[in-house]
Amino acid sequence: MTDFSKTRAMFDIPEGMIYLNGNSLGPMPKAAPERMQRFLMDEWRTDLIRGWNTRNWFMQTNTLGDRVGRLIGAPDGSTVVGDTLSIRVFQAVAAGLALVPERKVILSDNGNFPTDLYMVEGLMKLKDAGYELRIPDPEDVLDNITDEVAVVMVTEVDYRTGRRHDMSAIIEKAHAQGAVVVWDLAHSAGAIPVDVAALDVDFAVGCTYKYLNAGPGAPAFIHVAPRLLSVVESALSGWYAHEAPFAFDTDFRPMPDAIERMRIGTPSIASFALLDAALDVWDAVDMEDLHQKSIDLSELFIREVEARCPGVTFAGPRDPLARGSHVSFRFEHGYACMQALIANQVIGDFRAPDVMRFGITPLFIDQADILKAVDTLESILKNKTWREERFQVRAKVT
Amino acid sequence: MTDFSKTRAMFDIPEGMIYLNGNSLGPMPKAAPERMQRFLMDEWRTDLIRGWNTRNWFMQTNTLGDRVGRLIGAPDGSTVVGDTLSIRVFQAVAAGLALVPERKVILSDNGNFPTDLYMVEGLMKLKDAGYELRIPDPEDVLDNITDEVAVVMVTEVDYRTGRRHDMSAIIEKAHAQGAVVVWDLAHSAGAIPVDVAALDVDFAVGCTYKYLNAGPGAPAFIHVAPRLLSVVESALSGWYAHEAPFAFDTDFRPMPDAIERMRIGTPSIASFALLDAALDVWDAVDMEDLHQKSIDLSELFIREVEARCPGVTFAGPRDPLARGSHVSFRFEHGYACMQALIANQVIGDFRAPDVMRFGITPLFIDQADILKAVDTLESILKNKTWREERFQVRAKVT
Repeated sequence: MTDFSKTRAMFDIPEGMIYLNGNSLGPMPKAAPERMQRFLMDEWRTDLIRGWNTRNWFMQTNTLGDRVGRLIGAPDGSTVVGDTLSIRVFQAVAAGLALVPERKVILSDNGNFPTDLYMVEGLMKLKDAGYELRIPDPEDVLDNITDEVAVVMVTEVDYRTGRRHDMSAIIEKAHAQGAVVVWDLAHSAGAIPVDVAALDVDFAVGCTYKYLNAGPGAPAFIHVAPRLLSVVESALSGWYAHEAPFAFDTDFRPMPDAIERMRIGTPSIASFALLDAALDVWDAVDMEDLHQKSIDLSELFIREVEARCPGVTFAGPRDPLARGSHVSFRFEHGYACMQALIANQVIGDFRAPDVMRFGITPLFIDQADILKAVDTLESILKNKTWREERFQVRAKVT
Repeated sequence: MTDFSKTRAMFDIPEGMIYLNGNSLGPMPKAAPERMQRFLMDEWRTDLIRGWNTRNWFMQTNTLGDRVGRLIGAPDGSTVVGDTLSIRVFQAVAAGLALVPERKVILSDNGNFPTDLYMVEGLMKLKDAGYELRIPDPEDVLDNITDEVAVVMVTEVDYRTGRRHDMSAIIEKAHAQGAVVVWDLAHSAGAIPVDVAALDVDFAVGCTYKYLNAGPGAPAFIHVAPRLLSVVESALSGWYAHEAPFAFDTDFRPMPDAIERMRIGTPSIASFALLDAALDVWDAVDMEDLHQKSIDLSELFIREVEARCPGVTFAGPRDPLARGSHVSFRFEHGYACMQALIANQVIGDFRAPDVMRFGITPLFIDQADILKAVDTLESILKNKTWREERFQVRAKVT
């Protein structure tokens, strides 16, 4: 059994704070500052340019990629880290389209995280006319997988409601129809069990700043099915993907049959130091244990809120297996109420128009936290604290 | 007058090392570790998700962009940082092509840094057939600017020889022919005076890990001429570029008339902390003083090497104004000789087939360093130290 009191002790969370936003930005692992100082003083400061060899900077895209890959069921050598998730979505969809050149339809859904849709819009503008992005309601994705579809791009877990796609059904139908699947794991990796190999997905992408706790703007990752590594092409063909990056040839030749071909340009090595420290937390975590604890805590939270917080309505699927690892509630005064919660050290977040969202992250959240969070919410509602003027003003960035 | 003894004192360089590789990876500013600790402990650890507002993380792309912009003559509001230089090249060339949609030729040169060419290759594969990348010899770029050319993409300073393009002439002719110019400043920013506004360039891109000293894989930057900010489109249209990023609309609408439209996805905030510390060094530096000192040190280096190091041939332009801020020499046993130099604490680098390259960085290199470096080289040549077996073996990454 995973010992979650041990993982909890690996995070540096401000005293008194109940942090229910690890689904948006994970908290700092205690090991992060020391790991970063080591990178700065022993590596950059001391080895300088030689660090690319002596400290393996050049291959950290892959060594850290493998560590992330293990959390999503990917075999070693099929995942790399670096760049942003927006870039990885672009790269994966472009690569997917190139695998099915005779088709022109990209299928997503209108519950997908908007940047995924935006990046596809940008990609389509670069391509020939005739490409089309279809965004039905999430529950209609499966029905919309036809033999017109080149790429199915879905985020497994809805960033608002927590609703989870049936990835197995989507991948199976997509493959039966000859389509390629790009699976966005932003709200899945480190939240729920994922097995990209067992489901035989084509591409998976995600970020490491949410449930993986590698810091704001931490590197993204991309996984490519091993069966595709010899044929897949990256449209973002930087020198890091070249078969001989230090030959400085004028022609691009992709690294043969390897995940290196998904590398792009020179990645931030400082951000890799934080990712390295964050991944250590996962060494003693069993993903099934984590999932069970996430479900237990979520069910407790929903039950207590529904019993004690009138006017606040649960906004996700009732079946815990149909959810990711956050729970959302609708409340007419959700924005102001969330501000009041935050002022009382219960940190969740708000998504327009009226969704209060709470990340359930067993690595550092336990039953006592959940009960205390509900106490706080109950008290805010009872006293109508959310009516205070200071909680009504919308900040520029919510 | 800039006091270069003060800037030198702002870097933490290992005792006894003469670091002539600041053109590849700048050394660590002394302020970096403390700035990073502050980011980790006071910002990420303490403010957590609220840091996007309270610590201005969301706008650091722009505030740091403005600081970099000032070093290249860009007015505030026309430069952002984030992503890699490879991505920025792709973005700039794609945006340039969209401004001249009836033309299909991208003009660069065969001395350009390869990743720039590779990224264009990838971009062309995404576009309609008919696009063409022309790479004449660098000295023939000007003659190849015709009314067929959509985008001229050149790196001002050759990464091997230091040879410098006449950007003024290139931009003038390109504009007369109706072409757009993408100027890669990787080896210019922080090395030589640059005035993107005076030369009225369309796009400028560059990195901050060389002469700007922000650490391995530090963020890239992109500058867009203010006159283009209302019309330019980014093909990499992530949520950071949306006019209402927190509205979570399904349609992309670019930020109107602003450099924000060149932002892409969520950038590494840790890498921004290092960039912030690195930019402080520049506050008291006059770029003309820096350039004069770079020329003085370079001329001294060339003169001494030519006088004392037989067999080693200067490989750059004689006219100091036709060079960037590194000097290169050809030597038959250049690889082994550079290994011997490095073993003796003189750090330069090697570029195939036979180029020994030395960055001249007045922020932290002075006349005594240059003379000591030449002493070391002279002694290695005299004793044929480079013949030792340990210096002959090529590492995987040079």
